[in-house]
Order: sequence, then C-alpha cells, then structure tokens
Amino acid sequence: MDIRALQQRLRRFAAERDWQPYQTPKNLAMAMTVEAAELLEIFQWLTPEQSLRLDDDQRRHLGEELSDVLLYLLQIADHAGVDLEAAVERKLALNAIKHPPLSRS
Amino acid sequence: MDIRALQQRLRRFAAERDWQPYQTPKNLAMAMTVEAAELLEIFQWLTPEQSLRLDDDQRRHLGEELSDVLLYLLQIADHAGVDLEAAVERKLALNAIKHPPLSRS
Amino acid sequence: MDIRALQQRLRRFAAERDWQPYQTPKNLAMAMTVEAAELLEIFQWLTPEQSLRLDDDQRRHLGEELSDVLLYLLQIADHAGVDLEAAVERKLALNAIKHPPLSRS
Amino acid sequence: MDIRALQQRLRRFAAERDWQPYQTPKNLAMAMTVEAAELLEIFQWLTPEQSLRLDDDQRRHLGEELSDVLLYLLQIADHAGVDLEAAVERKLALNAIKHPPLSRS
Repeated sequence: MDIRALQQRLRRFAAERDWQPYQTPKNLAMAMTVEAAELLEIFQWLTPEQSLRLDDDQRRHLGEELSDVLLYLLQIADHAGVDLEAAVERKLALNAIKHPPLSRS
Repeated sequence: MDIRALQQRLRRFAAERDWQPYQTPKNLAMAMTVEAAELLEIFQWLTPEQSLRLDDDQRRHLGEELSDVLLYLLQIADHAGVDLEAAVERKLALNAIKHPPLSRS
Repeated sequence: MDIRALQQRLRRFAAERDWQPYQTPKNLAMAMTVEAAELLEIFQWLTPEQSLRLDDDQRRHLGEELSDVLLYLLQIADHAGVDLEAAVERKLALNAIKHPPLSRS
Repeated sequence: MDIRALQQRLRRFAAERDWQPYQTPKNLAMAMTVEAAELLEIFQWLTPEQSLRLDDDQRRHLGEELSDVLLYLLQIADHAGVDLEAAVERKLALNAIKHPPLSRS
C-alpha cells in the first residue's frame, strides 16, 4: 500500500469538495472514532465464536468500515505531519520491550 | 507499507506471547476502538486551531496512537479474511459516487 | 430520576424480547460505546460555536442519543452489581481532590 | 437521583476551575466517548462469562468509569438544553414500537 499516494488522493478528493476547512486533526479524530464504533457495532451482539465466522455480507460490511477507519487515519497522519511508517516501526519496537515474549523451555 | 508482511509480524508477535485465544475479531474491534478513543483524547480540550499546531511531544504521542489503531486494524483484516487494499479501492469508488465533486464554472 | 425503577423497566423490556443472553456486561459496554459515538457524530463537523447553538432537530436527535447511552449505562450498572448513586458520589469526591479549585485572591 | 441538582453541582465545579470555555457540547461529547472507551477497555480481553463475574477491584473500577460517562452525559444535556427525563421517556416509547415484544402462546 502506497501511503503517500493514498494521502495525495484523499487531499485531492477533499479539495474537489471544499472540505478542507472541516478537516482539522480534531474533527478527523472524531470522524475516525465514529467509524471505529460503526465497525464495533458489527460485533456487538455476536459471540466471540460467531465473530470468527463472518458470512460474505458481514465480511463486505467489515471491509467498508475498516476502510473508513483507515482513510481517516491516513488523513490525520497527513494533516498532523506524522510519518506513519516510522511511527509504526517505533511502536512495534516499544511493544516488544513492553511485552517480552514467553520463554519456552 | 507492506501490509501482508506487517500482518505476518503481528501474527508471530501474538503467537510468541500466547495471545491467539484473545484475538477474536470481536475483541480486536474493541481494542481498536479503545485506541481510537485514546487518540481522540489528545484533541478533546484543544481548539480546532490548536489541533493544527501540535508540538513535538503531541505529535510523537499522536504517532503512537495512530500506530496502535493501525496495528489492530491490520489484525482485524487479517483474522477476518478481508483484503484491505481491495476494500480501500472499493470504498474510494463508493465515496466518489456518494459525494460527487463540486462543479466549478 | 428513579434509577432502580428504570433498571427494572429495562430488565422487563429485555425479558419480553428474550434478549437476556445477549446482555452481558461486555456486550452492553460495546453497545454503550456505539451509542456514544453516534452522539459524537452529531458534532463531528460542527465548530465549537455551532455546537452551542443546536436547532430543534439537532436537539431532539441529541436527546435520543443521550437516552441511548444512559439506558445502556443503567443496564451495565444493574447487570454488574454497581450502585450507581454511590459510585457517582465517590467519583465527585475523588475529582474534587484530583482537581482542587482555583484560589482567588 | 436528582439530575438537576447534579447538573448544578457540575456547573459550580467547572466554574470554580475556570473550565467553562472548554465545555462546549462538542468537547463534552468527545470527553464522554473517551470515558465510554475506558469502560470498554475493562472488558476487552474478558470472555462474556468473565464479564458476568467481576471481582471487587473490577467492579470498583467499573463504577468509576460509569460515573465518568454519566457526569459528562449530564453536562451535555445541561449545556445543550435537553430535558433528559423527558428524552428518556420518549426513547423508551420509541423502542417499544421499534421492537415489539414477542408474542407467547
């Protein structure tokens, strides 16, 4: 996935609709959270087991909500000047320190 | 960003910690929403203008929360069998239909 | 507001629809968060100033979402055995310690 | 629970700390969602069954998060001019129409 190219497309998409004034990081963070909750709604009454066996309709719906979250996430990183790939590598390194692997004997 | 490679790394990370039983799509969707709200918290008392001018500490914090959301998002797609890049392209096409660009004369 | 009476009504409402198996505290917490995000959605593209001047339609919509959040909140407290009024008093006391009032001279 | 009295106490609490400029309905809706997600976090890795058997520490923590959500909810209603008790009765009536009870024969 070419993150910079996607961020460029999203900037152009917003500009063609005069959406720039609305797209502050604050508002985009709200929109991303709203989309995360729409994704959560898919699972709210499912058992953990049912959540492992989605049907095609549920999987397509899930794909839409995952995309919505990701598209806002890319816009937040872009508008706030965060290098997402560098941030992910740093977070993975932090997680590895915070949660050491189990030792197997 | 190589999504498949990241998803592989996250699967290995979870396996080395015996986290697999917890990682149902239902639980991962909850965890992603929790991280989205931690990102939201950065902005909750800022004005829209202040959200456009984060300092270095805020930007680093934002990068961590964006990464947390993204890492759970990649795991949900992986565990639920969603092809994320295809889903994103489909969603961008749907958005272009749902929100036509302004006509400029 | 008579909290116990409302909790009783919500229990009866669920029982008449055979919803009890779905109403674990885990699922109710997901549902409450989904409703909180629907409330958030009302405000996502408004300026702070616009959020202070809702029109009648927006205020009625807000009333519905506030009610949805509150009804799930009451059910979580009920199903998890939390005495909500006691918890609120304890939290207000903690907040007063955590955030001392400004001294005016 | 005396809602009006609680809303008065919360107004006074905010005034004594000069918090009023931050307390727009938009910001309060963000804060309420953040607190809802903190509550969700308690349950994210629990099974549905475990969520039914919280220990004393978990129940005390849950009581704090329920209170945080409720206190922001009361402030949103207050600042946006929503009569919460009337809104709840209206929503309960709507829910009864939307979800008719099962007929038992």
